[in-house]
Amino acid sequence: MTNKDARTPAFSQTDGAEDAGTPAPTPGSSNGEAGTSIGWHKAYVGGSRPDLRVPVRQVHLTNGQSVTLYDTSGPYTDPAVDTDVRRGLPPLRENWIVARGDTEEYAGRPVRPEDDGIKHTSPRGGLRNLDAVFPGRPRQPRRSRGGRAVTQLAYARRGEITPEMEFVAIRENVSPEVVREEIAAGRAVLPANVNHPEIEPMIIGKRFLVKVNANIGNSAVTSSIEEEVEKMTWATRWGADTVMDLSTGRNIHTTREWVLRNSPVPIGTVPLYQALEKVDGKAEELTWEIYKDTVIEQAEQGVDYMTVHAGVRLPYVPLTANRKTGIVSRGGSIMAAWCLAHHKESFLYENFEELCEILASYDVTYSLGDGLRPGSIADANDEAQFAELRTLGELNTIAKRFHVQTMIEGPGHVPMHKIKENIDLQQEICDEAPFYTLGPLTTDVAPAYDHITSGIGAAMIAWWGTAMLCYVTPKEHLGLPNRDDVKTGVITYKIAAHAADLAKGHPGAQEWDDALSDARFEFRWEDQFNLALDPDTAREFHDETLPAEPAKTAHFCSMCGPKFCSMKISQDIRREHGGSRAEIEEGMAQKSREFAASGNRVYLPLAD
Amino acid sequence: MTNKDARTPAFSQTDGAEDAGTPAPTPGSSNGEAGTSIGWHKAYVGGSRPDLRVPVRQVHLTNGQSVTLYDTSGPYTDPAVDTDVRRGLPPLRENWIVARGDTEEYAGRPVRPEDDGIKHTSPRGGLRNLDAVFPGRPRQPRRSRGGRAVTQLAYARRGEITPEMEFVAIRENVSPEVVREEIAAGRAVLPANVNHPEIEPMIIGKRFLVKVNANIGNSAVTSSIEEEVEKMTWATRWGADTVMDLSTGRNIHTTREWVLRNSPVPIGTVPLYQALEKVDGKAEELTWEIYKDTVIEQAEQGVDYMTVHAGVRLPYVPLTANRKTGIVSRGGSIMAAWCLAHHKESFLYENFEELCEILASYDVTYSLGDGLRPGSIADANDEAQFAELRTLGELNTIAKRFHVQTMIEGPGHVPMHKIKENIDLQQEICDEAPFYTLGPLTTDVAPAYDHITSGIGAAMIAWWGTAMLCYVTPKEHLGLPNRDDVKTGVITYKIAAHAADLAKGHPGAQEWDDALSDARFEFRWEDQFNLALDPDTAREFHDETLPAEPAKTAHFCSMCGPKFCSMKISQDIRREHGGSRAEIEEGMAQKSREFAASGNRVYLPLAD
Repeated sequence: MTNKDARTPAFSQTDGAEDAGTPAPTPGSSNGEAGTSIGWHKAYVGGSRPDLRVPVRQVHLTNGQSVTLYDTSGPYTDPAVDTDVRRGLPPLRENWIVARGDTEEYAGRPVRPEDDGIKHTSPRGGLRNLDAVFPGRPRQPRRSRGGRAVTQLAYARRGEITPEMEFVAIRENVSPEVVREEIAAGRAVLPANVNHPEIEPMIIGKRFLVKVNANIGNSAVTSSIEEEVEKMTWATRWGADTVMDLSTGRNIHTTREWVLRNSPVPIGTVPLYQALEKVDGKAEELTWEIYKDTVIEQAEQGVDYMTVHAGVRLPYVPLTANRKTGIVSRGGSIMAAWCLAHHKESFLYENFEELCEILASYDVTYSLGDGLRPGSIADANDEAQFAELRTLGELNTIAKRFHVQTMIEGPGHVPMHKIKENIDLQQEICDEAPFYTLGPLTTDVAPAYDHITSGIGAAMIAWWGTAMLCYVTPKEHLGLPNRDDVKTGVITYKIAAHAADLAKGHPGAQEWDDALSDARFEFRWEDQFNLALDPDTAREFHDETLPAEPAKTAHFCSMCGPKFCSMKISQDIRREHGGSRAEIEEGMAQKSREFAASGNRVYLPLAD
Repeated sequence: MTNKDARTPAFSQTDGAEDAGTPAPTPGSSNGEAGTSIGWHKAYVGGSRPDLRVPVRQVHLTNGQSVTLYDTSGPYTDPAVDTDVRRGLPPLRENWIVARGDTEEYAGRPVRPEDDGIKHTSPRGGLRNLDAVFPGRPRQPRRSRGGRAVTQLAYARRGEITPEMEFVAIRENVSPEVVREEIAAGRAVLPANVNHPEIEPMIIGKRFLVKVNANIGNSAVTSSIEEEVEKMTWATRWGADTVMDLSTGRNIHTTREWVLRNSPVPIGTVPLYQALEKVDGKAEELTWEIYKDTVIEQAEQGVDYMTVHAGVRLPYVPLTANRKTGIVSRGGSIMAAWCLAHHKESFLYENFEELCEILASYDVTYSLGDGLRPGSIADANDEAQFAELRTLGELNTIAKRFHVQTMIEGPGHVPMHKIKENIDLQQEICDEAPFYTLGPLTTDVAPAYDHITSGIGAAMIAWWGTAMLCYVTPKEHLGLPNRDDVKTGVITYKIAAHAADLAKGHPGAQEWDDALSDARFEFRWEDQFNLALDPDTAREFHDETLPAEPAKTAHFCSMCGPKFCSMKISQDIRREHGGSRAEIEEGMAQKSREFAASGNRVYLPLAD
């Protein structure tokens, strides 16, 4: 979204220098020369109260104009904020939450060794690194007083416009009332746990900009807490709107604490993963009590949305028997194993109402998981998948009764011609609750390029109404993404999301494209770089063949060279023949004669 | 397309060793261990005559099955063929062409210094490197006797099935009569200049597999002949179906000769680029005579299809005046400049019938250029673009009268919601002539990622009927692609093309996905790699986190680790509860009791 003229932002002029002591990437994109100002600044747009300041990315163009872009990077790109990962981010929303007066602090559930996967029976018990415990300000968890729903949905239904709603209204350039209406109708969610005051509120709904989630998380095989925190800040630097911490190894609780306290975006999890760790990976030993305890543990930490695979019901498991790739969702396969082992209905399905009560008292948003999503082209849109979707619709209705914000997860592997049915069915069955899809991947044959196989499907399904896209990295199916993979995944999905915003005709979306295309046509190379989704790589690619500084103002690039630059020729035509169509039509014949007579060149031939 | 069972291929058992003396990449994907056989072999499927052998890529799976894939890599991946870039490829089609008896050799146009951009007036005249002249077998050009059309279209209309048609029928797994019918109807083209006998015939039409073109070509700024030949073999190694040589610098003629004599795929060009070099880059000095001479020069060399911007008519130029990015096609801008300079109708449009006669006598295929394609989201589907398209429809009708095979080029930058109108209009206006599109790019904001912005549009438009996709590399808008960029562009577009084949329900397309998904579900890692579009990168990504050989047979990967592998759990469920749905439904309760009683794990917990 661009916003060239709208509000007068409360500028924070910065020099773009790295803030030492933070793990965040350098803000913006320097033009590579010491002493010059960077191409974009962090700025803020003020709201109705002094503590409501909405961050934006202000791109300053060489022609004196500026373009305002949506910014997810958090305080890390604001040198005026002294960030320190050991202390955590400032609790932006704390006063808003406290002022509502409907929550209270309480002692909370004591943290236990097994929350981090440490067993008393283990011969090598204890955290590998005790320094890992988050050292930030002491805090007590908060929950609703007297079991009331303290959710944005409850407030919206009562007609209240919260500061969070105003915040996203400014971010999305719509009226706060539109935000309230969409949330009240269940068509949008604003994930914001009362225990995660650090976030900058954002909204997920088809009426708004398409959002992108990035998954991080260590596994039993590899990666550390530090890496995961760095991946989170790195993902938001490139545009991730939410981050899911899918850790499955040791130190799950501690990793999550570090991630939450340092995250400017909502954090999602799959509590089932941690619950399974607590029973040593034995699915049949899972119980509702262990699961519930884990949900409360995570809700107290501040998790904003949770994937719950309550749609994987006992009778659906046999529907997967003839599939090519069975059940490919981790949560789905765990619940299927539990159902079969006990030959009982899923404890998540059976206890769904109690779960709603818990989530409502922290404002944790449901992300109803698609545990039976197709894992191959062959399995797309099958009976198992749609049976689960119908159950998710039923659960969505229950969740709304408890005022719990709810979104619905979607596939998976789906060939292009079967994508639209997914979003159309989901919207119909789930009363237009936000759809949150993984890709979908449009072919199975390109491991190492599944960000692309899925980026295609993601763009299409987002155009047709998906509200948030879960990214896929090049490592999908092959390994755990590293920092580069996270960036590639986020950028690919920002492309898909923005392409969808354009196709949906989202107000203002095209202004960004127009600004970049203007810069391109006018050979303002620095502006073209600074407006790019990834300024660093655009600049690097240009400089590979034309590194010298004069090339930054040249009216050509190395693709065609100076003689063949169509934009240059096109500009010269325009210059020669007048600016507007009327001028051209009127003066063309005359200009043509002058042009021929003058011996003018439409471009400068190479010296030869 | 996979072809598990069809014909008995005439195997060429190979060990996959690099054939010394060629610039081609190593064939196939070794598993990295000396002494073991590679995952795929070059093989041939025989036709009705001994000299008709269609190359395929035979992937041998560890379960004893094999999968046959379409192969564009040419003799370079066949160690039985002794290739040498200084000699050129064997002239596979020569006997077929001679046997038809409708062409004759002739002296041909003498090659002049200016064909390589060398001016008598130049102070530094002469080829920079005289060794660059192609040293291969002497040849005289060939053209039709007595001005008859010697095109595949003419033959098809007469009811003849040529060896070329039989060749593509085997490649596409359809009957030769289907091939003939589609060519005769103008719905497909088989680009095959009588002076390019080295090619392995291929077909472009919506009834067939979606094809991918890769652009190469030096520019005035950078790159050499050697690099361009290497890029060509590299592009075809990864799946490029045709290659366009868009060279604009010096040595255009000589570079093209090397590329043609070594290319197993049809080569396309834009003759206007070379014609402009001959007039020192002064568009207004271009003449029909210089252009015609260049077309004949290139036709004699063997160029299989030529982009001709005959649709850029004088009255359309003013339609671009209010565009955001004017004219972005090089050819389009050159012709617009010429038209304005002379205030005359385009010499290409005026002399189109004579051009048809020339192309018909060599069987050069038209690629009618979209010189007024949109170069930004803002300019998509505008009056200028569609005015030109209507003219291309008119020219298509004329070309068909002369029996010249014709395809139509398409945009460009188009947001998703405006893509379908492009293919629908083109098919209607151009009598279903094959559409050949560049992307389209679905947003302007991601320079350095335009393979992705355009891969999204390419997959969609191919699903809806585009026959060939012109790739876009990550360097688009920024610089000249290097070898890595060529590979990334080709792989991205092979994904788009295959996703479209799936969505179109192309017979056999899904067998490839199914084979890979079977391998994935059964943890046959080596098979999964070998079936991948890019086996090398898939293996490399996997090995980054789990490099040891045992991990290649492990029932998990580093994404989830051993405890959380859903495929493993899913397999265990299937094993525990029987294979089919009926078995599961019948025995589930019983198995469930046994399972719980046995203390079996659905997976092995990590040693703790």
